[in-house]
Amino acid sequence: MARSGRELRTTITEDGMLRINLETLPVPEPAQGELLVRVEAAPINPSDLGLLFGPADMNTLKAQGTVENPVLTAQVPAHLLPAVKARLGQSMPVGNEGAGKVVGAGSDLQHLVGKRVAMIGGAMYADYRLITPESCIVLPDEATAAEGAALFVNPLTALGFVETMRAEGHRAIVHAPAASNLGQMLVKICQADGIELVNIVRSQEQADLLRGIGARHIVDSSTETFAQDLENAIADTGAMLGFDAIGGGEMTSTMLNAMEAAAARKMDSYSRYGSSTMKQVYIYGSLDTGPTILKRRFGFTWNLGGWLLFSFLKRTDPGVAKRMRDRVRAEMTTTFASHYTAEISLQDALRPEIAAVYEKKSTGEKYLLVP
Amino acid sequence: MARSGRELRTTITEDGMLRINLETLPVPEPAQGELLVRVEAAPINPSDLGLLFGPADMNTLKAQGTVENPVLTAQVPAHLLPAVKARLGQSMPVGNEGAGKVVGAGSDLQHLVGKRVAMIGGAMYADYRLITPESCIVLPDEATAAEGAALFVNPLTALGFVETMRAEGHRAIVHAPAASNLGQMLVKICQADGIELVNIVRSQEQADLLRGIGARHIVDSSTETFAQDLENAIADTGAMLGFDAIGGGEMTSTMLNAMEAAAARKMDSYSRYGSSTMKQVYIYGSLDTGPTILKRRFGFTWNLGGWLLFSFLKRTDPGVAKRMRDRVRAEMTTTFASHYTAEISLQDALRPEIAAVYEKKSTGEKYLLVP
Repeated sequence: MARSGRELRTTITEDGMLRINLETLPVPEPAQGELLVRVEAAPINPSDLGLLFGPADMNTLKAQGTVENPVLTAQVPAHLLPAVKARLGQSMPVGNEGAGKVVGAGSDLQHLVGKRVAMIGGAMYADYRLITPESCIVLPDEATAAEGAALFVNPLTALGFVETMRAEGHRAIVHAPAASNLGQMLVKICQADGIELVNIVRSQEQADLLRGIGARHIVDSSTETFAQDLENAIADTGAMLGFDAIGGGEMTSTMLNAMEAAAARKMDSYSRYGSSTMKQVYIYGSLDTGPTILKRRFGFTWNLGGWLLFSFLKRTDPGVAKRMRDRVRAEMTTTFASHYTAEISLQDALRPEIAAVYEKKSTGEKYLLVP
Repeated sequence: MARSGRELRTTITEDGMLRINLETLPVPEPAQGELLVRVEAAPINPSDLGLLFGPADMNTLKAQGTVENPVLTAQVPAHLLPAVKARLGQSMPVGNEGAGKVVGAGSDLQHLVGKRVAMIGGAMYADYRLITPESCIVLPDEATAAEGAALFVNPLTALGFVETMRAEGHRAIVHAPAASNLGQMLVKICQADGIELVNIVRSQEQADLLRGIGARHIVDSSTETFAQDLENAIADTGAMLGFDAIGGGEMTSTMLNAMEAAAARKMDSYSRYGSSTMKQVYIYGSLDTGPTILKRRFGFTWNLGGWLLFSFLKRTDPGVAKRMRDRVRAEMTTTFASHYTAEISLQDALRPEIAAVYEKKSTGEKYLLVP
């Protein structure tokens, strides 16, 4: 085993320079209760990009450093610096989840050496990761690292939506953008569980893709009839719970207004306060970091909140959380299979022309880091 | 007793004409369990204005009809008609609350004849109102109609904020705009109950007014230091619960961002997901009907919802609701006293030059209808 490994780090300096580099660190020795994993694959999720690039201007990406020791830099506009005040000057590791081979273990965990595991916990964009078994899923022997790399964030988020639906007494879900890796998982979960799902896509190609895996209610936000189509789909399904990963712009507002219009169809008489049907939307991502615009034609019986996997897991019954994990393990190559646009190395990730592409967060495009 | 009475009605026609008139109706005979009240005073609340004028263009107000039978008209812009589809063509009574003398009663309620009562339930802009005792508070003999006219909407809303705070585990409140009649009640309630209240006002005069009645935390949104002042006041009080009657624009966003900034002061390390402190804002009015603009620098642990008195009362424990009413009755001339800018008659309400003034919903200005 190597004596040292690389770890990708991101820093924003006090004067607004983003700096991404590969730190060389000694490989740690696993203590009791710890595993040392050689990272083989880690997806670049939208939630990783927020930490990786912060609010940097992607038009200012620049390669610096040397071939062995590359550095990627970019400028953070001065007016956006206050938003990241708390991280200024700190060299931060990145990578929420990944998969790899156990290459070392504390004396109590020697039986896991040689196994491949899926992991969650940050700092996965690295050659090695010291971790506890609680943050791992031990994979079947035949599983590849690519198959195990993304078994936490998207699968548990998609399952978390369904658990949230049950906990809050809803019976159907609206989701946008629905053609993402996560969206496809949600289609399969809802199909298996008999839950009506309204899928909001942004193109005909995405609609075709979802129809191909069995989605029934698909509305295309790029068409002129979108608002009306959405209202009809919500009226058909009774979906008064929405999850929106776009965040900025009018998607949440459009969902709430369509829910209200669908609810109003069943009202006997006019109320200036709107329908008494509770309409709930969660923003769970921020693909568009611009302002959320709420055109409140949806009365006073509504709720909009942030939804975060880690908070959800914290407040969820451990039995439910275990059931979710067990399902992910059992369906890792079916429901929860991810598809990658390309595999890139740690050094590739620091090349401006490659960073400019994977940073775009195009729906359905996903990159896999292979250290 | 007169054989007929007038009742103010508002109608929006299919072709976008708002029409406000006085309908003459026979005075009804109270049955068992019913009271007939001659309405003596009814406030014009912002929530009444929404029904009264709908989305009509106030620049098109026009007097029509005759002196005895006045009619007020205005145009509703075509693109706003869909928002009021459900009321088109309906002649709707107005007036959430009021006070008056009981002039008739079912045989079981004869002991209430001659009493003055405060009422809730709509259709108060009228000479007479048939009502059940459950929707009334019987006033002390010395109480005037003006004192009893507004004992439901504002008092129960202000008390409802405090009950919501308790139910959701918060310990302090942010309120905007704080110099309203309701805001002044909230200042007094919080003072009496030892609750920290951050009052957002829009001018130095309003700040002085609130300071005069004992408010401690006052921030002025018209100053350049507003955002920072608000953050400081929230850090001082720990107020992570806000109530906003403005709705449109950036007030809710400003509250949430100030809460997050105050919460971030206590964070040990940076999180790209923001603080884990729950930040809750309710929109309970819509003084600005324009879009709500959320500049989401407040992470993922937040919640924004509509707050409606009638929904709150419906889901509240009857014991709590009774305690709230008892307090309103006991403190009607102190905590819950309303101040009126002017008294106007039913006919005055239909004069364009007067309607243009009371429709403005200026904070601290309030009109009392005296049929």
